[in-house]
Amino acid sequence: MKKINQVAVVGGTHGNEFSGIYLLRKWQKSPDLLAREGLNVETLFANPKGFEENKRYLDCDLNRQFTLEDLANPALANYEQSRAKVINAQLGPKGNAKSDFIIDLHNTTSNMGPTLILLKSDDFNKKMGAYVLAKMPEAIVVYEDQVSMEEHYFLASIAPQGVIVEIGPQPQSVIRQDVLDWMETMTQTILDFVALYNNNQLPELPASYDAYKYTESLTLPQDEDGERIGMVHKNVQDNDFKPLSKGAPIFTLFDGGEITYQGEYEAYPHFINEAAYYDNNLAMSLAEKITITLD
Amino acid sequence: MKKINQVAVVGGTHGNEFSGIYLLRKWQKSPDLLAREGLNVETLFANPKGFEENKRYLDCDLNRQFTLEDLANPALANYEQSRAKVINAQLGPKGNAKSDFIIDLHNTTSNMGPTLILLKSDDFNKKMGAYVLAKMPEAIVVYEDQVSMEEHYFLASIAPQGVIVEIGPQPQSVIRQDVLDWMETMTQTILDFVALYNNNQLPELPASYDAYKYTESLTLPQDEDGERIGMVHKNVQDNDFKPLSKGAPIFTLFDGGEITYQGEYEAYPHFINEAAYYDNNLAMSLAEKITITLD
Repeated sequence: MKKINQVAVVGGTHGNEFSGIYLLRKWQKSPDLLAREGLNVETLFANPKGFEENKRYLDCDLNRQFTLEDLANPALANYEQSRAKVINAQLGPKGNAKSDFIIDLHNTTSNMGPTLILLKSDDFNKKMGAYVLAKMPEAIVVYEDQVSMEEHYFLASIAPQGVIVEIGPQPQSVIRQDVLDWMETMTQTILDFVALYNNNQLPELPASYDAYKYTESLTLPQDEDGERIGMVHKNVQDNDFKPLSKGAPIFTLFDGGEITYQGEYEAYPHFINEAAYYDNNLAMSLAEKITITLD
Repeated sequence: MKKINQVAVVGGTHGNEFSGIYLLRKWQKSPDLLAREGLNVETLFANPKGFEENKRYLDCDLNRQFTLEDLANPALANYEQSRAKVINAQLGPKGNAKSDFIIDLHNTTSNMGPTLILLKSDDFNKKMGAYVLAKMPEAIVVYEDQVSMEEHYFLASIAPQGVIVEIGPQPQSVIRQDVLDWMETMTQTILDFVALYNNNQLPELPASYDAYKYTESLTLPQDEDGERIGMVHKNVQDNDFKPLSKGAPIFTLFDGGEITYQGEYEAYPHFINEAAYYDNNLAMSLAEKITITLD
């Protein structure tokens, strides 16, 4: 892997996730906070009109528009699809990107704490996970490496290396200090890591660590007419990254019934009851616990 | 006070406060759940278009449109102002209302638990507070009796008696089971109370109880250009109804500074960092602790 030089820190990809937007303002006033030897760090406010209108997006979810195919399709021309093309021109283009590394800043209404989402499991990312956990023991590392960077539709997939910083719980359109502090610390820690990795100056890292690997998403219960008939069970609510065993209640129906988890593996729910996922009737994501071993 | 006969239970006054909306659906399917001897209970979905668009409101806050003056002003004709006139015709008219009592169901993103907001401090409301606290010890009773019912701009002020059920924390556009359960229990408890009060069959209630009385609202820190420069301090976040003493930090500035509370009384913040209040740059409401004595 060539050394990382050009870095983009992106906020406001979703217009009602305020932490990244307010941190960008702070960092634009004090660029020294992001400066690291050997790195050229730029910032980008991805969905300013979403923020203006206090919505996640105007027309469609910006953070689902970055497949090569969609970026090349001129018929996709709504606001977010247009923003995706502009951002791809500025930070990419995907496949031959000016940016070596992208950090995309997000909030969730779920109780996920400070979570680092890695889009592939190469040496750089595996060591980044170890480094972040060493500096932030309360952090969680999730691998969403089920497809290649080329196939990912996330903004952070424009560059050869890209990560998502996902911090919650925070209601949409709110700034919580604890969440803001976590996001700032994680971003700073990642930039520290990149500078150290570039120069082979990483401290000694543990030989292995626990992480989570995305497996599937669960939908909220609906009847045949598509009407929602239940909600996340109170035993699951706020218990992101706590194990869920077969037979445990997972949904409560409005008529008082319960639906239990019937999966064959010990699942670790996250993005539990995330507000934005209601658009697609999603209740939560599941992961398996994995052990990451450093070479 | 004449006996209460006609009762309206209102949900979805704010389109992204989901608990009341989903409870209305449940109760419309099972009206028996709301039925009480001597009471005629109807339900009303106040802002269906707000819900459709997944927003608190389209044009302006519906729950601020119910002063006599605004209801009588034909020039106020946007969506919520029109809904206010229609709802006033259906449940009111204010001053000579068909409804004897209104329960208006709300959610907050603040950590307020199950809160009962009373708009005046007469015998009926004082006893209702005592009864609800006896049945739900985790509940909080707040008096917003700083103006008369006639002067209040809340939907619940259409009728001679009206209360707001305010349950949190719940992000906008989410259904949490704990919050839904609290709202259902509080609504049922209030209806029980009304039936018992009508018939002089209330159980023995404590001679006095602690409650809170609204005093003022605090704004988020801004610079001279009106740009937001700070947020609710992490020591205050989630500590709704915990006392705040003079000199305690209340806001953290994005540049690292702090602003302390300088009020002359022991304040009880609530609606702390409520998402919807950012529209008006409000950070929280303050209350004083009071003792309510039953005659």
